[in-house]
Amino acid sequence: MFLHALRRQRIPLARWSPARFIATKNVISDPMTGELMPSTPDIQPHRVEILRNANPATPPPAHTLVFGHTFTDHMLAIPWDAVSGWGTPEIKPYGPLQLEPSSTVLHYAQTIFEGMKAYRAEDGKVSLFRPDMNMKRFNSSARRLALPTFNGEALLDLIKHLIRIDQHWVPKEPGHSLYVRPTLIGTQKAIGVGPPNEALLFVIMSPVGPYYASGFKPVSLYGTTEYVRAAPGGTGAYKLGVNYAPGVLPQKSVAALGYSQNLWLHGPEHELTEVGTMNMFVVFSKDDGTIELVTPPLDGMILPGVTRDSVLTLAREHVSGKKRLQGLPDKLIVSERTVTMKEVKAAVAAGQLVEMFGAGTAAVISPVDRIGYMGEDVLIPTGEDGMGQISRPVWVELIGRQWGTIPSEWSVPVTE
Amino acid sequence: MFLHALRRQRIPLARWSPARFIATKNVISDPMTGELMPSTPDIQPHRVEILRNANPATPPPAHTLVFGHTFTDHMLAIPWDAVSGWGTPEIKPYGPLQLEPSSTVLHYAQTIFEGMKAYRAEDGKVSLFRPDMNMKRFNSSARRLALPTFNGEALLDLIKHLIRIDQHWVPKEPGHSLYVRPTLIGTQKAIGVGPPNEALLFVIMSPVGPYYASGFKPVSLYGTTEYVRAAPGGTGAYKLGVNYAPGVLPQKSVAALGYSQNLWLHGPEHELTEVGTMNMFVVFSKDDGTIELVTPPLDGMILPGVTRDSVLTLAREHVSGKKRLQGLPDKLIVSERTVTMKEVKAAVAAGQLVEMFGAGTAAVISPVDRIGYMGEDVLIPTGEDGMGQISRPVWVELIGRQWGTIPSEWSVPVTE
Repeated sequence: MFLHALRRQRIPLARWSPARFIATKNVISDPMTGELMPSTPDIQPHRVEILRNANPATPPPAHTLVFGHTFTDHMLAIPWDAVSGWGTPEIKPYGPLQLEPSSTVLHYAQTIFEGMKAYRAEDGKVSLFRPDMNMKRFNSSARRLALPTFNGEALLDLIKHLIRIDQHWVPKEPGHSLYVRPTLIGTQKAIGVGPPNEALLFVIMSPVGPYYASGFKPVSLYGTTEYVRAAPGGTGAYKLGVNYAPGVLPQKSVAALGYSQNLWLHGPEHELTEVGTMNMFVVFSKDDGTIELVTPPLDGMILPGVTRDSVLTLAREHVSGKKRLQGLPDKLIVSERTVTMKEVKAAVAAGQLVEMFGAGTAAVISPVDRIGYMGEDVLIPTGEDGMGQISRPVWVELIGRQWGTIPSEWSVPVTE
Repeated sequence: MFLHALRRQRIPLARWSPARFIATKNVISDPMTGELMPSTPDIQPHRVEILRNANPATPPPAHTLVFGHTFTDHMLAIPWDAVSGWGTPEIKPYGPLQLEPSSTVLHYAQTIFEGMKAYRAEDGKVSLFRPDMNMKRFNSSARRLALPTFNGEALLDLIKHLIRIDQHWVPKEPGHSLYVRPTLIGTQKAIGVGPPNEALLFVIMSPVGPYYASGFKPVSLYGTTEYVRAAPGGTGAYKLGVNYAPGVLPQKSVAALGYSQNLWLHGPEHELTEVGTMNMFVVFSKDDGTIELVTPPLDGMILPGVTRDSVLTLAREHVSGKKRLQGLPDKLIVSERTVTMKEVKAAVAAGQLVEMFGAGTAAVISPVDRIGYMGEDVLIPTGEDGMGQISRPVWVELIGRQWGTIPSEWSVPVTE
């Protein structure tokens, strides 16, 4: 046919090789492959350029807020490219991004994000809750998608700077906070699948109300066997955009059946993994009166949630005696292990299922009262106000530490 | 704590309900859930508005083209929103999109795409290859992500219009073509996870050379057990952005080991599923001389590729006698069935593995000569020029139909 006319070989794969970077002066060894990689500048907070919003908005009344619909006056943006590394950080007016239609994020889902909250204490001071955990996970997500990594402390410095500039956007009302959303996208201007040679990190912020404003309304779950959120060898353990879009249709399906959220089950034994976009906990009682708090292990399918880790840590500090929590039982076991629907059903039948709840940044603690499973409803006990005997003391300590009424190292000051 | 101060209930879930749409005059029943949904305008090609590029570029010389780096003078854009449906289609100068930083595509990977090629025949006429298959799959992908669907013929009309306007960008050189990339993204300006209330469909086009310009250089594969491309209950059967970004790191890993592509294996039996971003075929010979052409079945993990379907159809038409292909054996069996690495290894050992190849729009047919698997290299036979006894006759027929040298219904005229 036409092969005789062709001389050169043109394989997109070649663009995936780091060889093109070797021209830069400083090279380091790729920790994963041993290949030489460029040593380019990291994020440099002191280089930040600030362009004030000439038309700042008035934060709307707290009671009108809808989650994630209102944004503050400013945003942070830090460009990256493979040759120059991280560029000049900019704090500038919140506004649209100009993206080439060929940008890889728009085609191949090269996006990772974080979700964290800034809280205003009663004395007016603003703090973040365990932001080091978010920075660590953000970098872990970046590595998984072959996006550029960065110094987490440097990014956190800039995020604090951004929050200080828009600090009047952190609501004063009880239970309200400023949701902070760091995002990193691949912006290579070419429709090949590979590590992008350009990327953009940006941070936007949205004042939000409490997830359950009228109290802890328990949610109903549908044990989903048709769809999966994650699988072994997949991306469930990272906070990637790709873990979210596919969950929308399953969510619509269970809503049509009258349930609130998917309970994502895995494998032939129907292991419980996560709830909607939250980690999950189940509490069992044993014959000898011992209480066991269980969450699935970080086996590659489970997101290492900050709230998940906080619940585990608080419960373990109670057990070890480092900090006893009022209301938590003395005989408490904290387990990261697999739980199957068979075990849940058996415990419910035996009256040994104490409670079940989701845990995440948005809702903090979200009690469960019902699981639709294989054609029947499995009823889960809940306390009078929705919370149960384990979740309530943990939640009280947790939000105390978040809002600063209970001093802890987890609360990181943003304003003086 | 603060619950006493709170009155309203504010659950993001509420936004996932279609109830908010009922205010529109015309409602239809959602085919999936039975719920009432708005009947809003579909894509209307006759309403297209055309803004010519005042500064058209000169298409670069064909030999300088790198896949997906050069774009034509114009693009197609069609906005959608939940209230108004599909808006006015625009053909306008290729240029950046303005996207709010809160756009859901940038956070939750709400993006689907298609890849198709426009070919220039020797008489200068331009055609598309089986574009109805792409339109069908595009809608299937949209449904999976709860993005808006549309009339595929209407979109195809507009794509043809776009190609006609930029028809001088369809390369004349042998083996070259114009790669057409329709993309649909969610653009809701709020960081909640749900079906977007706004979306943007756009089409960009890139002149490309042949994937293997110097002949059919066989590729080496690495049988990947650490990562998966897809899983049961996942999204592998749809052309979603989410299936691509997670494959970049595994690709880097195998490149560092000296292999070209991942061979994605599934389950404890190490079933072969796909190769890199291509479907795959294995050819076995049997003791009685029968040849079996095998590809994995469309079981939910496999992308229903247009090239995959074309290879199967051509082979089956040969078997049925509808159209015999010169060079294909008389005793041919065409199977969509599971193949395991155990079967592949046994066939290689017995001298009964005839060939193996990937199939996709970019490379068309991509022979395989080696699989790194569990610490050893499994050598796969290839023909003298890389192609084998099954792939060569199929490839000859396929590219004949693509470039119009072999007339067929698969070739759809774009220009007169």
